[in-house]
Amino acid sequence: MQILRTKQDVRNWVREQRDSGKSVGFVPTMGALHEGHKNLMQQAVSQTDSVIVSIFVNPTQFGPNEDYSRYPRTLESDVEIAESVGVKAVFVPDVQEMYVEKQHITFSITALNEHLCGRSRKGHFEGVLQVVNKLFNIVQPDKAFFGKKDIQQCVIIRKMVDELDLPVELVLGETVREKDGLALSSRNRYLSDEQRAIAPHLYQILGACKLEIVNSELVQKALNHALFTAEQVGFRIDYIELVNDSDLQPVQEIIHGKTYILAAAVFLGTTRLIDNIHFTF
Amino acid sequence: MQILRTKQDVRNWVREQRDSGKSVGFVPTMGALHEGHKNLMQQAVSQTDSVIVSIFVNPTQFGPNEDYSRYPRTLESDVEIAESVGVKAVFVPDVQEMYVEKQHITFSITALNEHLCGRSRKGHFEGVLQVVNKLFNIVQPDKAFFGKKDIQQCVIIRKMVDELDLPVELVLGETVREKDGLALSSRNRYLSDEQRAIAPHLYQILGACKLEIVNSELVQKALNHALFTAEQVGFRIDYIELVNDSDLQPVQEIIHGKTYILAAAVFLGTTRLIDNIHFTF
Repeated sequence: MQILRTKQDVRNWVREQRDSGKSVGFVPTMGALHEGHKNLMQQAVSQTDSVIVSIFVNPTQFGPNEDYSRYPRTLESDVEIAESVGVKAVFVPDVQEMYVEKQHITFSITALNEHLCGRSRKGHFEGVLQVVNKLFNIVQPDKAFFGKKDIQQCVIIRKMVDELDLPVELVLGETVREKDGLALSSRNRYLSDEQRAIAPHLYQILGACKLEIVNSELVQKALNHALFTAEQVGFRIDYIELVNDSDLQPVQEIIHGKTYILAAAVFLGTTRLIDNIHFTF
Repeated sequence: MQILRTKQDVRNWVREQRDSGKSVGFVPTMGALHEGHKNLMQQAVSQTDSVIVSIFVNPTQFGPNEDYSRYPRTLESDVEIAESVGVKAVFVPDVQEMYVEKQHITFSITALNEHLCGRSRKGHFEGVLQVVNKLFNIVQPDKAFFGKKDIQQCVIIRKMVDELDLPVELVLGETVREKDGLALSSRNRYLSDEQRAIAPHLYQILGACKLEIVNSELVQKALNHALFTAEQVGFRIDYIELVNDSDLQPVQEIIHGKTYILAAAVFLGTTRLIDNIHFTF
């Protein structure tokens, strides 16, 4: 497996794949790879000829009070995991390779970032689009793979691809969970034993809330129950919301045949956990 | 020459060129083609194997009080001109092919649009980036050709290409002028005979202003002279400004070895004319 440090190295590597008639799969990550990433890489390996993974903790998607500096960096183990599933190249740029000091051109997002994580993480998804757009332009993959745990990110990236006519096919991987239901996340390693014991409640609460919504069709009442339970078990709540899956606006009433996202973000100490259930009523 | 109406037709055409080993040149236009466009197309034909021209009056780069609806549309003559210089395909999408009703992802520009045309045409360059980015993603050309008459557009598109790592080489064509110095523009056809007689003064005034700046190094005084003369000959002035060519900020003092843009926009009646001189001191 090759470790590439510069954009030019990536372009050369991709050209080699193209010249030998190979399709290119791309899995963008921030490293600290876990079974969720591994699952995405395996899908990429099964669906495309040559898979490249990027490992880049992107500063422009972190707010000033977020965990950019302490975000886990585990390059050695990341490289091993990627190699073990058949990834052919890893792109590990430094910040100077990706950004000039002053960026003049950025993305703006309408509606899609008003709720869920976008409401509390100002500028986060604009930073995500910036780095993903750049990476797509550098790699020019046939297919790119993203995990549904970051569902708002998936919806926003899909809109970018559609509205800007980016020549890439998106593949969304299902959320991978621990046996007790906790969604895998690079941030789970921040949790103390006590917090780790509380964490699986998040998915249970979402599951119960979805059932109540589907059975009673009383959305706000079900959300209130979920909020109450989440506080009871020890979460500090950022949001628990039901939104439609087209423009991520909150839903008061559900309609048969429509698709919804029930999503939550909660804190345990300073660690922020997110999870969601994507369902059609 | 082929006339293509859909993005898919363009992608298929480009794939055919690629499959037969041909490089692709791209000239994006709003139609109403004149000798300036012809010059760009000729450069494209000489530098790449297969040239495609887009003709699309892009609504998102026009303000509510601008000339979108009356912008000249001369498809038949445009197609003839393109064919005459060896262009192989023309992409003529309608608005529905290019845009969904509600766009969620747009571009933001810092600094580069604070002066010159950006100051009075709010949202114009954001609309330009949107359509050019989309067209680049649809065509994926090796080289794209733009005219220096729209110098602020050239600088902003170059920043987008650099900052977003777009895999395209930009080629900037010199401004083509009438014998009396008037820069060619699709909007010149709006001018009455009387206005047409006044119009060449714009380039003369810029030339004199540049000389005075270079000789006296008294920037503001030279600009004031230019503004005075422009009003005297009958222009209504939007701006006459001297900016540096890196981030398009105004310059009070000039430095040896640096490159500057002396640019102007003026009205004759409701017709807005622009021109510029790009020079190194």
